[in-house]
Amino acid sequence: MSPAGLGFELLARDGAARRGRLTTAHGTVETPAFMPVGTVATVKGMLPEQVAATGAEILLGNTYHLMLRPGAERIGRLGGLHRFMNWPRAILTDSGGFQVMSLARLRRLDEDGVTFKSHIDGTPHRLTPERAVEIQDLLDSNVTMVLDECTPFPAPREQAETSMQLSMRWAERCRRAFRERPGYGLFGIVQGGVYPELRRESAARLTGIGFDGYAVGGLAVGEPPETMLAVLDETVPALPQERPRYLMGVGRPQDLVESVRRGIDMFDCVLPTRSGRTGRGYTHRGEVNLKNARHRDDPRPLDPECGCPVCSGYGRAYLHHLFRAGEMLGPILLTLHNLSFYQALMARLRQAIEAGSLEAVAAGFLEDYARGDLPESPGAA
Amino acid sequence: MSPAGLGFELLARDGAARRGRLTTAHGTVETPAFMPVGTVATVKGMLPEQVAATGAEILLGNTYHLMLRPGAERIGRLGGLHRFMNWPRAILTDSGGFQVMSLARLRRLDEDGVTFKSHIDGTPHRLTPERAVEIQDLLDSNVTMVLDECTPFPAPREQAETSMQLSMRWAERCRRAFRERPGYGLFGIVQGGVYPELRRESAARLTGIGFDGYAVGGLAVGEPPETMLAVLDETVPALPQERPRYLMGVGRPQDLVESVRRGIDMFDCVLPTRSGRTGRGYTHRGEVNLKNARHRDDPRPLDPECGCPVCSGYGRAYLHHLFRAGEMLGPILLTLHNLSFYQALMARLRQAIEAGSLEAVAAGFLEDYARGDLPESPGAA
Repeated sequence: MSPAGLGFELLARDGAARRGRLTTAHGTVETPAFMPVGTVATVKGMLPEQVAATGAEILLGNTYHLMLRPGAERIGRLGGLHRFMNWPRAILTDSGGFQVMSLARLRRLDEDGVTFKSHIDGTPHRLTPERAVEIQDLLDSNVTMVLDECTPFPAPREQAETSMQLSMRWAERCRRAFRERPGYGLFGIVQGGVYPELRRESAARLTGIGFDGYAVGGLAVGEPPETMLAVLDETVPALPQERPRYLMGVGRPQDLVESVRRGIDMFDCVLPTRSGRTGRGYTHRGEVNLKNARHRDDPRPLDPECGCPVCSGYGRAYLHHLFRAGEMLGPILLTLHNLSFYQALMARLRQAIEAGSLEAVAAGFLEDYARGDLPESPGAA
Repeated sequence: MSPAGLGFELLARDGAARRGRLTTAHGTVETPAFMPVGTVATVKGMLPEQVAATGAEILLGNTYHLMLRPGAERIGRLGGLHRFMNWPRAILTDSGGFQVMSLARLRRLDEDGVTFKSHIDGTPHRLTPERAVEIQDLLDSNVTMVLDECTPFPAPREQAETSMQLSMRWAERCRRAFRERPGYGLFGIVQGGVYPELRRESAARLTGIGFDGYAVGGLAVGEPPETMLAVLDETVPALPQERPRYLMGVGRPQDLVESVRRGIDMFDCVLPTRSGRTGRGYTHRGEVNLKNARHRDDPRPLDPECGCPVCSGYGRAYLHHLFRAGEMLGPILLTLHNLSFYQALMARLRQAIEAGSLEAVAAGFLEDYARGDLPESPGAA
């Protein structure tokens, strides 16, 4: 009983993994897909055309940040988020719940919703399931997420259950509030902490309501990686086959590979952009800290197997110099590389699923990735 | 008696103004030309291809900054500045003199050169005319500037004369130290403060030595704009017609127009990049501060008469939002616009000289520019 606001075709399968295509009012998204995070209507340091050139077909925007500044009504008057930020492709917005729950003592939760104070100026704000949907409508988001309570880790079973039940009641209210239209859709979010039976109950409740897609929430909140994968093993099989599955806030390159193997179709994470700003680059041989002095005379590209414009045009010595000198271009170039690396990884996984070679490709990637950086350069002398 | 390291053709004249073409080992430069400043091997916030797309054909690099970090010998080993920063077009480097002279109590001047302490780590360094030329050679700079003492403003006549005479002795030593080769050249720098007879003497001394081009130094150091123009009126006619003339560190759009009218061919200035980082945009109706709240609901482009990618893709409300939120993309987009605006202005002046209409075009520009920003938007409601 899924509404048909968003198209989703399954093109191929390989084990539990799926190769799909999501169709929105702002273009199609080949899945498995990684969504760069554009918190306050910008992927930090990137022009939208640079993000598009990496292969990204959908961005994530943050309702919490946008409702505070510049404001949802203002973005609505200015023609919506796509037009405001000059991004013509698809946009998914979170519901604001995750950020609000992180505010700790600045927020107060009740059955109807949550009241909180802005981290910017302390002004009071309120989010209810209905208001979260309305804000995402004003933003013109292609994929609206239901308002939920993100259960912390660790949480005792009783807390996880109470929290999940509240999220399910809110999910139902979001479904009623959502204005259906072609090319736009609403995703439910499975909660339940680390408890398999709660996760399965949550999945069943959401499937009963019927959504355009199903997200797995409450992960990547501090639990060990193997716990996250164990939750996926219990949860994903309980989700409808014919709808996209989105693992929220995950993650590291190896997490993406492991989750795609388990049947996840969509991801978002701040890691490639945040790491890019702090000098950490992703390569096929793992993470590299470009601030390290061993790069200062190294003319080689960050990742010799990467075909991105950064690896084609610049050496490690230059990237190192930019970070040492505190130049904006360091974060810009490294963000561009990291986003390109993530998109290239997703493209490789998509091809592997089509070719039926996902297990071999995943194993090869994970082995290389665990090996560590290339041996030190002999120097350019 | 000008060496032929750099080609310079005069294509057209209009009054004292000249339309020319400089030929270097890294491409040609249509003059009058504006050179964006790439202080430490990067135009702050810009990818080199973005700078090139604005129309820039030559960048300025700062010897002082580059010799301290990452070091001239290191850049030399890595293949020179073009390759290091991925900028295949022409590069002019200053000699380091201007920055060193600004260090005040951190430096000590003698006949042979200047000793100073790094502003980064306090380590001692020394620049002599010969070392300044050697560093610029290591950087693979197409246009090397002589080491000079930038006379402060105001300076009594005696100080200006002593300083100018030292600069002339240094210019001669630079000429002897410079390694001549096709596509590379050395520019002399006229000093003499605000004293016409000193300026003329300096110009005559440099012309006697013979350089590939002649710069006017010691301006844009705090003197009133009319003083700067008066110095140009006295100095430019004393320079050889057949070689390019470069006004160092200037300036505002109106200064470029007035200086082109007086026969200047080349400019550099941090204004478009620095203003871009602080929220100040250049438009055909003068400067606009995008941090001002009056832009927050304004969907119009920064400058409706500008054809740059920023004015085509983004509204003032969005730029305002980015600066208010402290997002990197604000400085990036505004720097891109400002550099585009400067290059478009230079292109317009070049066309006007070719068409013999410079006086009318200059008067029209200056009149519009003085009018102030567009009337406030009625709002997007």
